[in-house]
Amino acid sequence: MKKRGLLLVLSGPSGAGKGTVCRALLKNEPSLRLSVSATTRPPRPGEVDNVDYFFLDSEIFNKMIKDGEFLEYAQVYNNYYGTPQPFVEESLKEGHDIILEIDIQGALQVKEKYPEAVLIFIAPPSKFDLKKRLFSRGADAREVIEKRLHCASDEMKLADRYDYIVVNDQVIRAVERIRSIIIAEKSRPHNFKRLLNSFN
Amino acid sequence: MKKRGLLLVLSGPSGAGKGTVCRALLKNEPSLRLSVSATTRPPRPGEVDNVDYFFLDSEIFNKMIKDGEFLEYAQVYNNYYGTPQPFVEESLKEGHDIILEIDIQGALQVKEKYPEAVLIFIAPPSKFDLKKRLFSRGADAREVIEKRLHCASDEMKLADRYDYIVVNDQVIRAVERIRSIIIAEKSRPHNFKRLLNSFN
Repeated sequence: MKKRGLLLVLSGPSGAGKGTVCRALLKNEPSLRLSVSATTRPPRPGEVDNVDYFFLDSEIFNKMIKDGEFLEYAQVYNNYYGTPQPFVEESLKEGHDIILEIDIQGALQVKEKYPEAVLIFIAPPSKFDLKKRLFSRGADAREVIEKRLHCASDEMKLADRYDYIVVNDQVIRAVERIRSIIIAEKSRPHNFKRLLNSFN
Repeated sequence: MKKRGLLLVLSGPSGAGKGTVCRALLKNEPSLRLSVSATTRPPRPGEVDNVDYFFLDSEIFNKMIKDGEFLEYAQVYNNYYGTPQPFVEESLKEGHDIILEIDIQGALQVKEKYPEAVLIFIAPPSKFDLKKRLFSRGADAREVIEKRLHCASDEMKLADRYDYIVVNDQVIRAVERIRSIIIAEKSRPHNFKRLLNSFN
């Protein structure tokens, strides 16, 4: 029987840089599989359908909700986001480590369904830094940014329900911390059943 | 208020190499403080009093037990081993990370008193390997080694009560895994109270 894979969930407030950290992590850990989310929001410049997201219209998304095809889904700023469950479940069974980059509501839903999921909260180093990053991204209107900043304060209050907090002061340092967390989680006793039994 | 230090407990069966791993770890992580244990067993060649152990006679050891001065103590192969509590408690309060290298009975006692202690089980890569190491050490009589091997099987059964298992296939790799565990444990949410509160 194959060892079940690790389910890593990365989230954090908009502007904390979870997308950048996630991409750098995948580059450093080629064995990690990224779970592609579905969304009803329009693609941002450079985003590719089926790679960055499955871009779906609301009708299809709602049908998938009704059919119970999502591991988690959430409404964020008038758009829906969700994780199709079958891909995740099959990958874990095959022993692959999966990473989900999802919002905070979604992360807590995953933890309910998969208590063994490892929740990592990507935090900005400070409130000032978060503000700076949101404005410099230049992708959103001022009122959208103000809304995101307001949400960030609420979201930071949920960080203590996560297993780990990783401050994104530098992407490379954040990635190193996540790699350490992966090594630690792979050192949990349930991964050594065969070795322990061989001493009987 | 200072952040409380991390209490790391390293143990494992005789011959798994926990002493070697512990010394290599201390060399790589100079900020770690080693808690010196007390024992009634005679020093082995090269062992230094007050550095490797506090070598005590049984009378003094028993008085310290009665006075409640041990965080944990245990009898192993007709000798007593114990961890003097005041040094550990003061170091943790001052924010220092402490490492205890103790036997398995002792480790589980520590976890009862300090549930936040991080228990790491140093495991040999295989039963064959353990046997080889015990014989090649050449420090003990054959009957002592046979006794240790028998105990090792029982001790491996307790490994699943630990937080982590680190296989000592190569000392340098074992040390790297422990360093990852330290980084992961320092990423627990309770260490980020100040940052999270600053977003309110």
